[in-house]
This record gives sequence, C-alpha cells and structure tokens, in this order.
Amino acid sequence: MDFFSRLSKLQATMCERGIDVMFLQPGASLVYLTGIRRQEPHGAATHTHGNWAAGGIIFADGDVVIVSPRRGVGSYLISETEGKPWIDSLVVIAHEDDPTDVLGDILQRLGSKKGTIAVDDRLWSQTILVLQDLLPDFAFTLASEIVAPMRRTKDEEELETMRTAAHITGQAFETAVAMLKPGVTEMEVAAEIDYQFKKLGAQFSAFATGVRFSGPDRPFIYGFRRSGSRELAPGDSVTFDLGCVYNGYCADFGRSAFVGEPPATYREIHDVVLQAEKAGMAAMLPGRATTTDVISAVQELIMDHGYEQDLRHGVGHGIGVDTHEPPFLSYLDQTVLETNMTFALEPSISYPGLDKAEWWNRVEDVIVVTEQGGQFISQVDRKLYVVDS
Amino acid sequence: MDFFSRLSKLQATMCERGIDVMFLQPGASLVYLTGIRRQEPHGAATHTHGNWAAGGIIFADGDVVIVSPRRGVGSYLISETEGKPWIDSLVVIAHEDDPTDVLGDILQRLGSKKGTIAVDDRLWSQTILVLQDLLPDFAFTLASEIVAPMRRTKDEEELETMRTAAHITGQAFETAVAMLKPGVTEMEVAAEIDYQFKKLGAQFSAFATGVRFSGPDRPFIYGFRRSGSRELAPGDSVTFDLGCVYNGYCADFGRSAFVGEPPATYREIHDVVLQAEKAGMAAMLPGRATTTDVISAVQELIMDHGYEQDLRHGVGHGIGVDTHEPPFLSYLDQTVLETNMTFALEPSISYPGLDKAEWWNRVEDVIVVTEQGGQFISQVDRKLYVVDS
Repeated sequence: MDFFSRLSKLQATMCERGIDVMFLQPGASLVYLTGIRRQEPHGAATHTHGNWAAGGIIFADGDVVIVSPRRGVGSYLISETEGKPWIDSLVVIAHEDDPTDVLGDILQRLGSKKGTIAVDDRLWSQTILVLQDLLPDFAFTLASEIVAPMRRTKDEEELETMRTAAHITGQAFETAVAMLKPGVTEMEVAAEIDYQFKKLGAQFSAFATGVRFSGPDRPFIYGFRRSGSRELAPGDSVTFDLGCVYNGYCADFGRSAFVGEPPATYREIHDVVLQAEKAGMAAMLPGRATTTDVISAVQELIMDHGYEQDLRHGVGHGIGVDTHEPPFLSYLDQTVLETNMTFALEPSISYPGLDKAEWWNRVEDVIVVTEQGGQFISQVDRKLYVVDS
Repeated sequence: MDFFSRLSKLQATMCERGIDVMFLQPGASLVYLTGIRRQEPHGAATHTHGNWAAGGIIFADGDVVIVSPRRGVGSYLISETEGKPWIDSLVVIAHEDDPTDVLGDILQRLGSKKGTIAVDDRLWSQTILVLQDLLPDFAFTLASEIVAPMRRTKDEEELETMRTAAHITGQAFETAVAMLKPGVTEMEVAAEIDYQFKKLGAQFSAFATGVRFSGPDRPFIYGFRRSGSRELAPGDSVTFDLGCVYNGYCADFGRSAFVGEPPATYREIHDVVLQAEKAGMAAMLPGRATTTDVISAVQELIMDHGYEQDLRHGVGHGIGVDTHEPPFLSYLDQTVLETNMTFALEPSISYPGLDKAEWWNRVEDVIVVTEQGGQFISQVDRKLYVVDS
C-alpha cells in the first residue's frame, strides 16, 4: 500500500481545512494511513503504563510520530514501526515517564497556542481530557471527517487484499459447513472458523463469529451470544455470519444451510434472498444511485414475494479496514455511490416472522461498485447447503 | 451480586463529591454497577445506528437509565436490562431518532446548567464531544476516580465468582497441556483454550490467549502475535498465559512446560519462579505493605539467585471485572494493600537473557490478600509440566 501518498493526501486536506494535528489510537484509521496493525482485541480491558497515550500523531505540515509504551501488551507498536520510512519518529513511554509530559513535549511542535486538533472517533475520554488540558485553546474535531472520505473508495491493491480476505473466509466456511451434523454445537463450529482464519494466514475474526441453529419449537433469539451451546437437530436451519481481517482489511460473509430435505417454503425463502441480493447489486449504479436505492431494491423484492426483510439488522454497510464503515446502507446516509466503493450486502428473512423466527435465512457477500453495478468480491457458491439428517 | 447497594453507594459518593451524573459505556464499570454484560469484542470496529450513545446514565440523586440502539450488534442491551429492578428505565434509539437528541432529552433531568459529569475512562471521543456540546458549562471528570476504589476490594460473592473463573481456566489449561506433542502449533493450542472457555460456561477469553514455544536457536520474540504458527519441537520450553471471563469476572493464569527431559538449569529457573511467587504472596500484608513491597520481594528473590525478572512485563496487577485494574504492581502505584484485594502475580524468567530468550518460564496465579498474606484463588498444580518428546 502506498502510505506515503495516503499521508501526503491527508496532510494536504488537513492544511486545507485548518486542522493542525491529528491524534489516532491504534485502530482502523492508523492501519489505513500507516500500516501499523491492530492487535487482537482483549475480552476485558488490559492496562500498560502509558497505553492511553499510545497511537499516531500526525502534524499537518510535518512529522508522523508513533507513541508506544515500552512494556506490556501495548508495546508491540515499537516493532510495528520498523521498516516504515513514512514514519518520522518513534517516542517510547518508559515506566518512569509521565505519559502526559510525553504528549506535551510532542505537541510543543505546534508552536501556536490556538488551532484545531482532529481525534480518532473512538479515542478514549481519558486521553481527550488530557489533550484538552494540554491544548486549552484548541478546537476538537473528529478525524473521520477527513479520513472516512479517503477510506470509502478502494484502490486496486485494497480490492486485491479484500479478495484475499474473502477467499480465506470462504475456505473457513467450507471447513465449517462440513462439520455440520446433528449434535454439533453452534460454538464448536464457530471456534473452528476462528481457528481456521488464523491457520490460513488472516489476523483474526473481524467480528464475533455467528453460527445459529433454529427450527420449529426452538426459535432463533437475537440476544447476547452470537454462537451458543445449542445442538444441531434435524429440521433446523443454520445461518453463518463470519469474516476475517487479512492484512488490515475485513471480510463479511453469510450463507444458510438446512438439516435434512428442506421444505418448499425454506427453498423459496432462500431463492428470494438470492434474488434480493441480485436486486441490490443491480441498483449499485455509480453517480446515479444512492444508498437508499440499494435498500429499496432489496426490501421491495422481498416484500413483493410476501416476506419481510429481517429488520433486526440492516440491508448492509460499507466495509474496508473496519467491518462496518461509511457509507452505511441506511436511509439516513444518502451517499451517492461511486465506483470502487465496497459494501457488505446482507439480505435475510426470518420465517414465519421476526418475533418467532423458526427458520432464518441469510446470504452476505462483499460487493464492489463498478460502472455495470455491483460485482461479487467473494466467490463461494450461493446455493442452499443441505446437511444429512 | 447486590447491585442496589453498589448503586446506592456510588450515588452517595457522587453527591459527596459534587458529581451530578455519570455516563458509562458498556464495559467493566457498567458490569460492576448494574450486571449489564459486555459482549465479546469485535476484531475490527462495527457500527450500529446510535451505538456511540449507548450505555448507562446514572444520576446522583435519581434514576439509572440504560440507552440502547434498537437494532444491530449493540441492541443486546435491551435484553440485558430485563429482570434488573435496579435499572429505572430503558431508552431505545430507533433508526429515525437522532442519538444526540435522545441524550439531550435524558440529560434535561439535570435541571441545572452547571455541574460535573463523570465519564467512563474509555468513553469514545465521538460521545464526549457531543456531551460537551450538550453540557457546555459542565466540568468533565473520569468515572474511575470513584468507581475504581469501590472495585478494588472484593466481597465474598465476587471472590466466589473469581474462584469459578479460575477453576474454568484451570480446566481449559488441563485440556491444552494434554495436546502438547511435537508438531502441534501455538495457535492450535490457543484455539482449543478459547473454545474450552465457552464450552465450560465462561463468556469468552479475558485477553488474547498466549501459548509460546521457544528453544535454542529459535528464541521467543515478544511481538505482535500472542500465539503463532510455530510448531513444538523437542527441547522447547512452553509458556501459557490464559484466563476467561465468567459472570463478569476475570481469571489470569500461567504455567510452563518443557518438551523432553528438562535440563537442570530450566528446572532451577522454574523453582526460582515458584519461590518468587511465594515471596510476593508473603509480602502481601494488609495495612502494612504497599504494592512496592510485593514487587521488591519478587524481584529480589529472582536476583538473589542470579536471574533477572522478565522486565518486558511487570510483576503483576490488580484483577476483577477487568484483566488489569488498579492497584497495579508498579512502583508508581504505591497503594497500601487491604484485605480482599485481588492480584494476578506473574513472576517470569527468560534465559539466558531478555534479548535472546531461548527458554522462558512463567507462573501466574490470582491471589487474594488476607490477614495472613496472599492466598491462592487458583488451585492448579504449579509443577513444571514435562511433555514426551
């Protein structure tokens, strides 16, 4: 990836908009701009001395500085800066240093007492309160205002990386679907998927893997767990929701299966979901369509067949270095589509209705917008997978 | 857990300190105060309409309000509020709602235009900038200033929960250590641990599971991955770092193994690590010792035997609803120990030195402070595990 160009473009936009400095924590925007990877997230918060001050500080007219704790879980940033000549300096917070002083020293390069700082949307309040103290006359704004527009169309190298992420995700799915037999639990299948991602060279799962079984008298519940201890039984529908992070970029993928010969109704539902996906893709016309047109195309097709798009989640979302990123397939978004935007499109139907989802069916693929409409990035068979009962 | 008491105590302290309202995102402090669980974290950021505004709002002199998105990954908060009479109301953000307006409406109950709001230490900047806009004349402070002191000593029910977390972690370790044979990879063993946690009834791993193999000519590298594709070989040392979250509370646990007959040096290193752990526990005398005394006891024992405590991480840390929480076993902390504080104590030695860790050895246990010094919460054999080569 051409990080020199991305950083120059960012700094030019910062100058244009009067933003003097940007502070990013380790996360998607830092991945995008510098190639500094995210770590696999921890289930409960962990603490390293100085980790609240860690991240990247980008001056509009100057240096790109990485700040890292010297020790503990956050200190991997030190090795991450190696071999990256677009990073001008690395500042390490030792155990005897006060992290506030370290940030204060770096920010002294600003010279001026007044200005604007852009911060990561998910920067911790602990950090922002210190920054406000260090820069009392600065205006604070969100980094996404200038980084999100850069991230939303992908270049060929990004698309190729997303194809690899989709390919690995498809391979993990093939292993998982082969495990389906009565008695297997949702979490057993999900654990295999998470392991396969790493084995196949991905970093980790982009989101908590969802493997869900449901059938008559044991409806699907949309709650706390995305894969639970439920055992597969004949007559169940199975839905998959999985995706890996590969070299910084995410996949998001879904398929459905049935245990035993699927009833005609379930086969029809699957067919309608596939048609809805095609309708959404056909509506992805750059320069002419908005996110709203895509939603309408998907929902109308499903409604025309007498079903209802499962409204517990949306029709889809932008995807890239984050699983969910702008533009969103939401009526509030209204973005006009552009060539090389990438979306996860995820039509789904629950039957007989949302409150009692005896069967659920979903298909999800990553789609790239082209002059001819949406095109699949993932190449896995979209059939209804039938499992021996 | 007695959430009514915890909330009353919190609100009394807020009144005392002049804090009018507290805003907590889903996380450890919300678990501690209300029992609202955290979800398994996502590998790359996900987005739900209104999720930046989700969490708990606690008024000093009144209600406890939970705010949840209606749909998508964040909407599990709706079902989490069920059966919790200490929560006064649930406010749901629908797709047509502006989340800022929703927060504004709730915060109108403050009445006064001036005051103080305490926010979660890791509340997103996106949220804090909106709150600063809604409450321009309020002072902002960190919630940890009053919640951390409440969390740092545990009651009997919390200790019992931590014993269960330690027990499940020990069971997962027994399964993992039985998998060790030449050719197995670090990530295979780590994946089994993560799966066992869920199978045994825990929520998920408290942190990215570390399984590390190292030996002569293939030193251990403290970098990006906590468990990689390295295959186990005769003459390797193996270190484990694992812990689950059970009913909100964390375990943190470590053991070491060796493939083939361990050399006398490695056996001695293991023995020194165990003695260092005992020395640290003996130093945990409530009212008389500080965190510094514990560090010194561990480090001096190791140095007296001619080795060096592995300084890439510390000697340990407080543990509870977070993996790492105050008090920290850090020279900067200086807390005087109290009965029923809980620490993860983790002495380790790398041999022959830190830069070239051909062998590594570590033991980690959760310890509770009693009148007689530290006592083990985890009950797993602390022997050196020897694997057939």
